[in-house]
Amino acid sequence: MVSLESCARCDYVVLAVPVQAMASVLEAIAPHLRPGATVIDVASVKVKMAALMLSTLPEYVQVIGTHPLFGPESAREGVKGHRIAICPIRAPRSARVFRFLQRGLGLDVILTTPEEHDRDMATVQGLTHLVAKALTSMGPLPTSLTTQSFSLLAQAAAQVSGDSDALFRAIEHDNPYAATVRAEFLKSVQALAGTD
Amino acid sequence: MVSLESCARCDYVVLAVPVQAMASVLEAIAPHLRPGATVIDVASVKVKMAALMLSTLPEYVQVIGTHPLFGPESAREGVKGHRIAICPIRAPRSARVFRFLQRGLGLDVILTTPEEHDRDMATVQGLTHLVAKALTSMGPLPTSLTTQSFSLLAQAAAQVSGDSDALFRAIEHDNPYAATVRAEFLKSVQALAGTD
Repeated sequence: MVSLESCARCDYVVLAVPVQAMASVLEAIAPHLRPGATVIDVASVKVKMAALMLSTLPEYVQVIGTHPLFGPESAREGVKGHRIAICPIRAPRSARVFRFLQRGLGLDVILTTPEEHDRDMATVQGLTHLVAKALTSMGPLPTSLTTQSFSLLAQAAAQVSGDSDALFRAIEHDNPYAATVRAEFLKSVQALAGTD
Repeated sequence: MVSLESCARCDYVVLAVPVQAMASVLEAIAPHLRPGATVIDVASVKVKMAALMLSTLPEYVQVIGTHPLFGPESAREGVKGHRIAICPIRAPRSARVFRFLQRGLGLDVILTTPEEHDRDMATVQGLTHLVAKALTSMGPLPTSLTTQSFSLLAQAAAQVSGDSDALFRAIEHDNPYAATVRAEFLKSVQALAGTD
């Protein structure tokens, strides 16, 4: 382990901390960052993180947002072939990072904007985690009398069941589009459920 | 095509009609069934079908409920290895049908009761179809910025998206346990969604 100060002096500073801790970490490293350094975050929400990094970090550092679209479960056998989103927020030299992710790590790199990312993730992560948590809360699920589509659903739930509550909160509440998508889904479920 | 009457005179009569049409079909065939014949249904709900068959069919016919736990999508390559539930409702000689499904068709045959079947299916089919329909109603889903767990969810939705509205109604409204499971799921989603 090295000090925060010496980490902050590196050419590339990757912030892998919970969304909730990001503001204080950014403030702590800001005075130690060197001109030309690149700061990269890996959080599940990008609009909020981009605004936070832009307002806290000195203008002489590059700012890149990323979101690895996999986790400990799905990338158990390695990250190769998995997807990562990249948002060059204030990054004239982002091509080098892009190439490292693509060629160096073998990832499927998707160039996007914080807004586009969060809009899609409000459905992709927002709904998946919501349905998964609701399903898991219903106790042990049937394992013998099952259909193939239900097994896919149960598998999706199992895959995110190990994720932290902090991640769930970030996905559902730090994504500016999540509440609207959730409300739309809930309305649809209610309409379908209430047809008796 | 042969007449309903001549079909009803067979040794084995398999009723593959929508749940909503079952009562009238049973009444139409009842007078033509022969003593010792076996009547088998393949509906997605078993408690209601069992009661209907027992009350409508003459005592001198065997009554067996089945539910193939697969559909045109999941069994596209053939039925072998897929699951089927079987409920010997009034069937002293059900072993022959069981063996045919198991050895003849290569199915994974699960012996159960109408109550046990419907209880599990309230979750397995009731929730899968509800989530699938709600998801599908939200318009085109993201295809590029996706996670593995979301892809499983989208795959589950796609697999049942071709099912008829009649099947959806049967699963949600002709299963005596479905409303309770739906309400529990909805309550859980609302509690999780409302934590902003």
